[in-house]
Amino acid sequence: MDALEKRIRREGRVIGNDILKVDSFLNHQVDADFMQEIGQEFHRLYEKEGITKVLTIEASGIAPALMCALAFHVPCIFAKKSGSANMGKDVYTSMVHSYTYDRDYTIGVNRSYLTNTDRVLIIDDFMAKGKAVEGLIGIVRQAGASLAGVGICIEKGFQNGGKELRDKGVRVESLAVIERMQDGKIEFRH
Amino acid sequence: MDALEKRIRREGRVIGNDILKVDSFLNHQVDADFMQEIGQEFHRLYEKEGITKVLTIEASGIAPALMCALAFHVPCIFAKKSGSANMGKDVYTSMVHSYTYDRDYTIGVNRSYLTNTDRVLIIDDFMAKGKAVEGLIGIVRQAGASLAGVGICIEKGFQNGGKELRDKGVRVESLAVIERMQDGKIEFRH
Repeated sequence: MDALEKRIRREGRVIGNDILKVDSFLNHQVDADFMQEIGQEFHRLYEKEGITKVLTIEASGIAPALMCALAFHVPCIFAKKSGSANMGKDVYTSMVHSYTYDRDYTIGVNRSYLTNTDRVLIIDDFMAKGKAVEGLIGIVRQAGASLAGVGICIEKGFQNGGKELRDKGVRVESLAVIERMQDGKIEFRH
Repeated sequence: MDALEKRIRREGRVIGNDILKVDSFLNHQVDADFMQEIGQEFHRLYEKEGITKVLTIEASGIAPALMCALAFHVPCIFAKKSGSANMGKDVYTSMVHSYTYDRDYTIGVNRSYLTNTDRVLIIDDFMAKGKAVEGLIGIVRQAGASLAGVGICIEKGFQNGGKELRDKGVRVESLAVIERMQDGKIEFRH
């Protein structure tokens, strides 16, 4: 997505060779209109897939997932991280390893909201090693729902998450894929 | 907001006399189209206020705040809870007490995204004792920004948060105010 690459070049801050901060428009301050365009782009990519639910994880996945759900006119579900109160017992859960925080956490989705008649699109803001998406796929499988694919705003192509998922036959559409970051410069994959 | 009261009556689950669960459409599974209507209602209420930023707290405030920001065509900022990595040092912070979890936590907003030229609308999904909103107001004050008011999807009118804020002269607009909940029944304030 050309507009996203331009925005990353203009506002992204590269820290070391690994961290990209885009919190001026994507995941702290959110450009609502631009996020709607991102949601519409995911819709364009998956519009023939009969999507019935968009699934993400709190917190920074919510904005792109909600705008995607709006474009499809379907519900958006955000998996909650453990520690969330009032989740109830009837919950699908997965373990996710966070490399950012170097810890495991549990995510959960109430069983009422995903069933074996659902066709699910998973959305997230970033993908690096893909552990969050793997956790969400685990929840889709537990529900007996079918997975249409994954939509990512920014994929770190120099980490393995996207490759591993594609090797397993999962459709992954990333609106911007970073090939490498070095000396503050960003190179995109095309 | 009549449509919201109807939806709460139809799908809300009352637990005891205190807890209302609306996670089928508001804060776990989110009805994206309905959330857009909610955002447009906040816009209608505050459209003459010259809003430049919509402010909320992760995670469940993000959906209504983003839809409100979309209606205003302004950025949405979500304050991060402490523990969030990569926040950097240039951060406005407030302490918030959560009665749900019975603990204090710190919220933060990067100083780049709120300045003394901003006119801020605070949005959240629920208000009970109003501690989260108070924390956000503290951040608005630190930034030297002006506060237009507060927009809440569901206010628990039988708790004191809304009253205390209004007594201080803060404009608070709640789309549904619950007067009391008893024996599974919900009574709204009009």
